[in-house]
Amino acid sequence: MTLHENLKSLGSGTTGYRYARPDATLLEAFPSPFAQPDLNPAGAVGTLHIECPEFTCLCPMTGQPDFARIVIDYQPDTLCVESKSLKLYLGSFRMHGEFHEASVNRICNDLVRLISPLWLTVRGEFTPRGGIPFWPTAEYRRP
Amino acid sequence: MTLHENLKSLGSGTTGYRYARPDATLLEAFPSPFAQPDLNPAGAVGTLHIECPEFTCLCPMTGQPDFARIVIDYQPDTLCVESKSLKLYLGSFRMHGEFHEASVNRICNDLVRLISPLWLTVRGEFTPRGGIPFWPTAEYRRP
Amino acid sequence: MTLHENLKSLGSGTTGYRYARPDATLLEAFPSPFAQPDLNPAGAVGTLHIECPEFTCLCPMTGQPDFARIVIDYQPDTLCVESKSLKLYLGSFRMHGEFHEASVNRICNDLVRLISPLWLTVRGEFTPRGGIPFWPTAEYRRP
Amino acid sequence: MTLHENLKSLGSGTTGYRYARPDATLLEAFPSPFAQPDLNPAGAVGTLHIECPEFTCLCPMTGQPDFARIVIDYQPDTLCVESKSLKLYLGSFRMHGEFHEASVNRICNDLVRLISPLWLTVRGEFTPRGGIPFWPTAEYRRP
Amino acid sequence: MTLHENLKSLGSGTTGYRYARPDATLLEAFPSPFAQPDLNPAGAVGTLHIECPEFTCLCPMTGQPDFARIVIDYQPDTLCVESKSLKLYLGSFRMHGEFHEASVNRICNDLVRLISPLWLTVRGEFTPRGGIPFWPTAEYRRP
Amino acid sequence: MTLHENLKSLGSGTTGYRYARPDATLLEAFPSPFAQPDLNPAGAVGTLHIECPEFTCLCPMTGQPDFARIVIDYQPDTLCVESKSLKLYLGSFRMHGEFHEASVNRICNDLVRLISPLWLTVRGEFTPRGGIPFWPTAEYRRP
Amino acid sequence: MTLHENLKSLGSGTTGYRYARPDATLLEAFPSPFAQPDLNPAGAVGTLHIECPEFTCLCPMTGQPDFARIVIDYQPDTLCVESKSLKLYLGSFRMHGEFHEASVNRICNDLVRLISPLWLTVRGEFTPRGGIPFWPTAEYRRP
Amino acid sequence: MTLHENLKSLGSGTTGYRYARPDATLLEAFPSPFAQPDLNPAGAVGTLHIECPEFTCLCPMTGQPDFARIVIDYQPDTLCVESKSLKLYLGSFRMHGEFHEASVNRICNDLVRLISPLWLTVRGEFTPRGGIPFWPTAEYRRP
Amino acid sequence: MTLHENLKSLGSGTTGYRYARPDATLLEAFPSPFAQPDLNPAGAVGTLHIECPEFTCLCPMTGQPDFARIVIDYQPDTLCVESKSLKLYLGSFRMHGEFHEASVNRICNDLVRLISPLWLTVRGEFTPRGGIPFWPTAEYRRP
Amino acid sequence: MTLHENLKSLGSGTTGYRYARPDATLLEAFPSPFAQPDLNPAGAVGTLHIECPEFTCLCPMTGQPDFARIVIDYQPDTLCVESKSLKLYLGSFRMHGEFHEASVNRICNDLVRLISPLWLTVRGEFTPRGGIPFWPTAEYRRP
Ligand SMILES: [Ca+2]
Ligand SMILES: [Ca+2]
Ligand SMILES: [Ca+2]
Ligand SMILES: [Ca+2]
Ligand SMILES: [Ca+2]
Ligand SMILES: [Ca+2]
Ligand SMILES: [Ca+2]
Ligand SMILES: [Ca+2]
Ligand SMILES: [Ca+2]
Ligand SMILES: [Ca+2]
Ligand SMILES: [Ca+2]
Ligand SMILES: [Ca+2]
Ligand SMILES: [Ca+2]
Ligand SMILES: [Ca+2]
Ligand SMILES: [Ca+2]
Ligand SMILES: [Ca+2]
Repeated sequence: MTLHENLKSLGSGTTGYRYARPDATLLEAFPSPFAQPDLNPAGAVGTLHIECPEFTCLCPMTGQPDFARIVIDYQPDTLCVESKSLKLYLGSFRMHGEFHEASVNRICNDLVRLISPLWLTVRGEFTPRGGIPFWPTAEYRRP
Repeated sequence: MTLHENLKSLGSGTTGYRYARPDATLLEAFPSPFAQPDLNPAGAVGTLHIECPEFTCLCPMTGQPDFARIVIDYQPDTLCVESKSLKLYLGSFRMHGEFHEASVNRICNDLVRLISPLWLTVRGEFTPRGGIPFWPTAEYRRP
Repeated sequence: MTLHENLKSLGSGTTGYRYARPDATLLEAFPSPFAQPDLNPAGAVGTLHIECPEFTCLCPMTGQPDFARIVIDYQPDTLCVESKSLKLYLGSFRMHGEFHEASVNRICNDLVRLISPLWLTVRGEFTPRGGIPFWPTAEYRRP
Repeated sequence: MTLHENLKSLGSGTTGYRYARPDATLLEAFPSPFAQPDLNPAGAVGTLHIECPEFTCLCPMTGQPDFARIVIDYQPDTLCVESKSLKLYLGSFRMHGEFHEASVNRICNDLVRLISPLWLTVRGEFTPRGGIPFWPTAEYRRP
Repeated sequence: MTLHENLKSLGSGTTGYRYARPDATLLEAFPSPFAQPDLNPAGAVGTLHIECPEFTCLCPMTGQPDFARIVIDYQPDTLCVESKSLKLYLGSFRMHGEFHEASVNRICNDLVRLISPLWLTVRGEFTPRGGIPFWPTAEYRRP
Repeated sequence: MTLHENLKSLGSGTTGYRYARPDATLLEAFPSPFAQPDLNPAGAVGTLHIECPEFTCLCPMTGQPDFARIVIDYQPDTLCVESKSLKLYLGSFRMHGEFHEASVNRICNDLVRLISPLWLTVRGEFTPRGGIPFWPTAEYRRP
Repeated sequence: MTLHENLKSLGSGTTGYRYARPDATLLEAFPSPFAQPDLNPAGAVGTLHIECPEFTCLCPMTGQPDFARIVIDYQPDTLCVESKSLKLYLGSFRMHGEFHEASVNRICNDLVRLISPLWLTVRGEFTPRGGIPFWPTAEYRRP
Repeated sequence: MTLHENLKSLGSGTTGYRYARPDATLLEAFPSPFAQPDLNPAGAVGTLHIECPEFTCLCPMTGQPDFARIVIDYQPDTLCVESKSLKLYLGSFRMHGEFHEASVNRICNDLVRLISPLWLTVRGEFTPRGGIPFWPTAEYRRP
Repeated sequence: MTLHENLKSLGSGTTGYRYARPDATLLEAFPSPFAQPDLNPAGAVGTLHIECPEFTCLCPMTGQPDFARIVIDYQPDTLCVESKSLKLYLGSFRMHGEFHEASVNRICNDLVRLISPLWLTVRGEFTPRGGIPFWPTAEYRRP
Repeated sequence: MTLHENLKSLGSGTTGYRYARPDATLLEAFPSPFAQPDLNPAGAVGTLHIECPEFTCLCPMTGQPDFARIVIDYQPDTLCVESKSLKLYLGSFRMHGEFHEASVNRICNDLVRLISPLWLTVRGEFTPRGGIPFWPTAEYRRP
């Protein structure tokens, strides 16, 4: 059995995109290869850097579209987030109205709940509104 | 009641721009989502990075226009600065004469007074005069 | 009466964003200042270069989001396209499924119908899918 | 019936990647929307700019891997090349040994045969070997 | 007598900045050295490329600040525009409300009136509003 | 006898490229000059930074090609990895299906086994899939 | 009385440029706004970053011109260096012959003597001679 | 028989580098695939763009090393220059003293003699000496 | 006898820098290799592109230093300008006061007089004063 | 007596370039101005950053040319390395065959022997071979 045999979205023929509201049930995890001694006899520490330049949601006050690059870094414990499921999850903000700070906080908390990492950060590099870009960051460290 | 229900400038139909002098009463705050346990059960630390590339004021000695990118970073305690109100506040320096160091110091102190952050920095990346750019920075840390 | 007194979207207090399908009725025009001899006694030729880096629609086959920078250049005859109405029009593709070539062709034809320019081009710089960006261009010249 | 209803590779659940030799039968075409008067009443001229930064094949003399960005520009007559089929076609060079000049010439001729464009160019931006990049270009114009 | 002996603004101790409305009387010209056979026995053709990255005015509908880089190119006949006077002229738009297309058209016509060039172009590279930059250009050629 | 006299791949007339699966037996080491007191009487600490922008393998779920830049940093103890053997080793992933995290973990462990460094890191900068790049890193430190 | 009322060079009608040798008497200081409790009730720490890309002097051995960007950073105690006086001071090296290391050391010592900062650094980014740029840095910290 | 079967340097086990003087006998050609109707039934026009960033020779007056990027573009008739032989040829300038203009002229003439192209250009982008880069270009067109 | 045997400044032990005023007598020429049939049997056309990023002079009105990159392009007839002599000539503007347009015109005319080229252009990319760069160009073509 | 009065290579009329093998006797030192209390009463710490983008040597296995940018940083004690002598020393590797790691180690040790610095690092940014750049670094710190 491979590491990924239970994944639903990657490589499947039909993908159900959802756009109404942030949907954490779209997220999927798989066992980290760094956590398996036969694959990692040297005991190397694994980390991930992920950039999602195509994030979009709506402004909750005006309804206008907002755009951002979402940057995620984390050190897995036993689980990693699967890439296509992350794409679907971030896509589910498309028709949702939420402030920049709240979206970044939500993504951080949803990922921490999914994979219980050692640490994880989310930065939202939103494009300017009124000539000014606001970039919130959420930083989690396991207590 | 949403986090932002008391905001006046964002999404309102009429905006009263003021250009005569720096006006800290234009600034508005809203409750930080990072400070609310139901929104942030993981206890992630939130920070903000903000760039305002369209700042302009006047030289107090010669009256000539000065231009700068104002860069603000902070860690909120219970309040965040609202984005459109920040735009209006920075716009209110338009016809005001003040030296670079004093403007940066003023912006830092006005924001600290508004939101009582854990820390906050303001950097003014002024364009060159006489071929030389001067970039003052003010760094506040809560004692 | 100013050049813009009939505009509906710019500066109005409430903006009705529409996201279901491309809606050319959102587009508005205003008289070109280049076409008015008292404003342009030298008879200068006016042209416009416009970039819309925040365009998004859906793939008609898979439903996945597509992203693009839309670049428009034109030489007005007697009318110019108004900027905020163009933003609303481009935003109306948000939940619409259409191929890259067809969207670019549609935007070109909708703008030609609105303002009857001397010439007009639309380029769609779509982000990669399968590692490959496709960038269609439509070029109109008045016969 | 949509423009693309006969396409096989895009959106299908199973994709058969072939890597042994260049396989022009993988290429598919669809009717150009620019060629249809109801979609293009203004008669705009359509062109395409395509970049494939992930091309790889083998050196026919040494067997070492070669890498390139393949850049394609063309003006369709009645047919366009479909994007996913182009990806599969370019992927089929993976285990094939061929010189830079010959690969670029082959891609140009295979695409001309598929869609009979008004003109079409292919440039291969190969990475350096011996410190020197060789970039061949093939330019076709319908006689 | 030097070429510049009648200039008022350059090198003077007191500069009167005006910010209320565009003021073409601030512009000054000086004799082109390219037009003087003793200085230019080879008969070289002179041209000028000028960039003003610090232009700001107001939106006539909302009163909000607009920012632009103004780029000017021209071929003088017998007169050149003096650099400091051009700075003062462009600064006089500071508190003036005007659309992008109209400002660019005005600058072009004011300069043509001042120096009667063989040709002259003005491009306004305005920063984005609503995520979209509009860049008008005015091109004059002596009939 | 030079430091490199036992190397097989560098400078040899025939190179046997292998593409079926990752093959650690292709890797070769040579004695570090930093570890030899006659060459390094000052006792300088040596480190290596290596970038391999031409890495490619296959997706284990879909069979599609993946591309990455592999970045390696290490501090040798008594051995260094030979450059041409590293090229052959990384080339051996060409027809192998493996997830990003697993490939990076494998390269790290294979190099640690070869040269027993004081520390060694491997970062895989994979190109985007679904618009999102995933960049895993493995960090080893000798206990 | 403003902070700057004793300044001589800024805004004065006549500027006496001196080019024969480095002249520290040209430097002027003004009271730091960060050091005044009424202006800085939050007690923010102020720092300055200054870049002078137009520095030139002569080589003391060959007499050929040398060019550099001079970069200065400091934390003021009670005094700041005034910007126009700094320009005049740096201009006074124009006809002076001195090695790169000595000029950077001199600028650092002259500024420390003027404003008694908490720390101050000067970096000279000299353009290449013989294909090689030399960049000396001087770092002062108050004991 | 393949297009390249007579090549000597590519893929051979032993390479004889020569560094004493420019040696045009090192250059080799192979038949252009663009010139063969069975490979190019569309009759596409082939061109080549080649960059050699690692060119070095000596100054004939002072003996100091000179460095350049050599950029070659050409349209082959029946022959192409082989890449490894071009590397060896350019390497043969290593210990040769010659002025920039003369080297560029020599490379152009040696290549024209080898492959009789329809047109061919050589540009030498030499690094600065005395702060000034000189870039000669030679342009050949078949009469 | 080599092409350069009469040159005085290149490779000589002592160089006399002059800084008081533009001195065209510093310029030297040498025979163009492109003009000699034995060196250029293909009859390639030679051109030169030269950039001088370290030009400085004084403002004739205020005495302040001005800085520019001087860019020269030309097609020689029988003579080329020697590189070190050009450096000395451009250095001779160091203490000279002259407007941008006049300096560019002067350099163009001095070079035309020296080498009688088929065509020659000089562009002065002056650094901003008052936030605005002025870039004059002079273009000569042999009648 | 100036700091540099014993230097041989800088400003001398004849320069003897040596290219056969690395020759540390070409290196010269001069007294650091930072180490002289009359020049540095503030006691500023001096450091140097040096980049040599034009380094070339040969591969000891194949004889092919290698190219690198050599980057040197150090904190002098009482001596600095003279710039022209460093150029001659690095040039002496031109016809020498040596591996990347060994060259960087050699340069570090030769400079430490010359000037006994407090610390010194050498990084060799070699251009790619086989598509892969190897960048060794040597770091010395005085025990
Ligand atoms: Ca990034
Ligand atoms: Ca993954
Ligand atoms: Ca930034
Ligand atoms: Ca906000
Ligand atoms: Ca653009
Ligand atoms: Ca591109
Ligand atoms: Ca398509
Ligand atoms: Ca520009
Ligand atoms: Ca001027
Ligand atoms: Ca190596
Ligand atoms: Ca900088
Ligand atoms: Ca200041
Ligand atoms: Ca080739
Ligand atoms: Ca020359
Ligand atoms: Ca650097
Ligand atoms: Ca030095």
